[in-house]
Amino acid sequence: MLYPRFKHFIEQKKMFSLGETLVVGASAGVDSMVLFDLLLKLSHVWKLKLVLVHVNYKLRGEHSDLDEMLVQEKANAASVPFFRFTHTEKSEGNFQEKARTFRRSKMEEVLDQQNAACIALAHHQNDQAETFLLRLLRGTGLKGLGGMKGSSLSKSGKKYIRPLLPFTREEIEAYAEEHKIAYRHDASNDDVSYKRNWIRHEVLQQLKQANPKIVNHLSHLSSQLREDEEALEYYVEAALQKVSISEDFGKCSLKREIYNSLPKAIRLRLSAAVFQKLFLESAILSADHREKIDHIALRKEGGKAQYFLPLNVLFTRDHEKIYFQKENVSE
Amino acid sequence: MLYPRFKHFIEQKKMFSLGETLVVGASAGVDSMVLFDLLLKLSHVWKLKLVLVHVNYKLRGEHSDLDEMLVQEKANAASVPFFRFTHTEKSEGNFQEKARTFRRSKMEEVLDQQNAACIALAHHQNDQAETFLLRLLRGTGLKGLGGMKGSSLSKSGKKYIRPLLPFTREEIEAYAEEHKIAYRHDASNDDVSYKRNWIRHEVLQQLKQANPKIVNHLSHLSSQLREDEEALEYYVEAALQKVSISEDFGKCSLKREIYNSLPKAIRLRLSAAVFQKLFLESAILSADHREKIDHIALRKEGGKAQYFLPLNVLFTRDHEKIYFQKENVSE
Repeated sequence: MLYPRFKHFIEQKKMFSLGETLVVGASAGVDSMVLFDLLLKLSHVWKLKLVLVHVNYKLRGEHSDLDEMLVQEKANAASVPFFRFTHTEKSEGNFQEKARTFRRSKMEEVLDQQNAACIALAHHQNDQAETFLLRLLRGTGLKGLGGMKGSSLSKSGKKYIRPLLPFTREEIEAYAEEHKIAYRHDASNDDVSYKRNWIRHEVLQQLKQANPKIVNHLSHLSSQLREDEEALEYYVEAALQKVSISEDFGKCSLKREIYNSLPKAIRLRLSAAVFQKLFLESAILSADHREKIDHIALRKEGGKAQYFLPLNVLFTRDHEKIYFQKENVSE
Repeated sequence: MLYPRFKHFIEQKKMFSLGETLVVGASAGVDSMVLFDLLLKLSHVWKLKLVLVHVNYKLRGEHSDLDEMLVQEKANAASVPFFRFTHTEKSEGNFQEKARTFRRSKMEEVLDQQNAACIALAHHQNDQAETFLLRLLRGTGLKGLGGMKGSSLSKSGKKYIRPLLPFTREEIEAYAEEHKIAYRHDASNDDVSYKRNWIRHEVLQQLKQANPKIVNHLSHLSSQLREDEEALEYYVEAALQKVSISEDFGKCSLKREIYNSLPKAIRLRLSAAVFQKLFLESAILSADHREKIDHIALRKEGGKAQYFLPLNVLFTRDHEKIYFQKENVSE
């Protein structure tokens, strides 16, 4: 029952075409082992060439090596090329984030080397729902609530696909059982001291009492919110075209009339975008700053007003114009 | 500490002006008793005239009458006019919804009769956060996740204000204790078989483990998502202007070029809006219908295609045009 829906989703999202090469990221867990199995079925019909990539983080001693062996066996049994990488850097900071960056860079290397069309990842609805709740807890706006897409391009222009996105973990596990697919259980997934596991095992279980279809629902909601955010970004981009930029003076100016005619959600995003565009990629204006700018720009009384922003940027409202300008700092 | 922030919020949102009359909805619970106390303080400075309104639903026997008595005592002590209404209709269906409609209609009657500027309600951050989670569980899009505003107009054009929106329930309870404000506890708020109470007493308590400021955060998020939805509606409205409507034929048509140039979130909302505008206020196109319409409109191949929608509406793509048309039903 999974396979026809899987195939339909790939066709509908035009993820790849007949005869192409796909890089499949495989951890040895049930998700990626099922993904590989389904792609293997499809590969016979669509004449695909599959390539398996595994990254060994050496975090769970012997278990890490057994994971790697299982993926290797799968690859051998299916006569599929297998690439393994070892990531042992014990650096400080966000390990998960660094592991992800490493894994992606290796998969992209293999993609280039194999002249592959895309990289297939095993994300599914529970990942979407869990990420949604994690971000909700952490404190985020619409942007952070938007989920992953079936098909997307990385910053480096590589194509990633997620053909398991229509399915829940339960469906994937049921498929594994029915088709006797070997996989390895990662014990660290049970440790509820990790926030994601806590969400999975406790929060989502609680919410299921009220809505048994909560995973499905949150997963769809997050896809839909991503489309909503993309629409808002489209209009911010259109509004940015009306900002005049004089790079010599590090100044961005805009007619108040134009700014004031925009809906509030666009106005607040626009000032953040102008600030970022002119001054620094990573410069982020706080919600308070954006609200204050908005207040000054909109208010009827008074001709001229100024407001200091971070990074020595001065926001000025001068009668019919508003502008952001980098102040010179004397050395 | 609450009072200055309360006053600042009212000023910032321009909720009302010096010398105006305000209708205050009061249940006898801590929220509305604190709201009344704070407005009373402000009324001395701002020369406001307050009017208290209480609705007795006779649901909890003697307790309902004691609630009413407390509000009446408060009104007498402050020399404020008091209006009470009894709602005893034991109708089927959603009681909460009907009670709310009744309460609002009575408050609006008093507003008219007293020539008041607005109706003050005691909603606070916990109400926002709980509503957000309730809607999240029920299954909703961006629109349903948007929170209440500090100040809004009802469909009948009456102004409602929510001056307690910047505060959490804990802050309101602490204020009541500090200022020895009498209020009555509604025991039905503890019954976790009501979904809202379950959210309040169980779900939110669990989420607080991960983020102690979760109420504050969800409340802000829901306000922000409301602004996001309002922006999208603004662009849908702008797109609707480009739809040509021939009422004689019950037909709405639009150039495909225009439709296809819009971001997806706007396209899906636009077809829902066109359908609703032309056929029925309450007609709702499902997500599946909207996706299908979108697919037909966007696809490159093929000149003409048709798709049946509910209410005997036929969607047609005819080369460079798309249209919705009500089919005649033979009698």
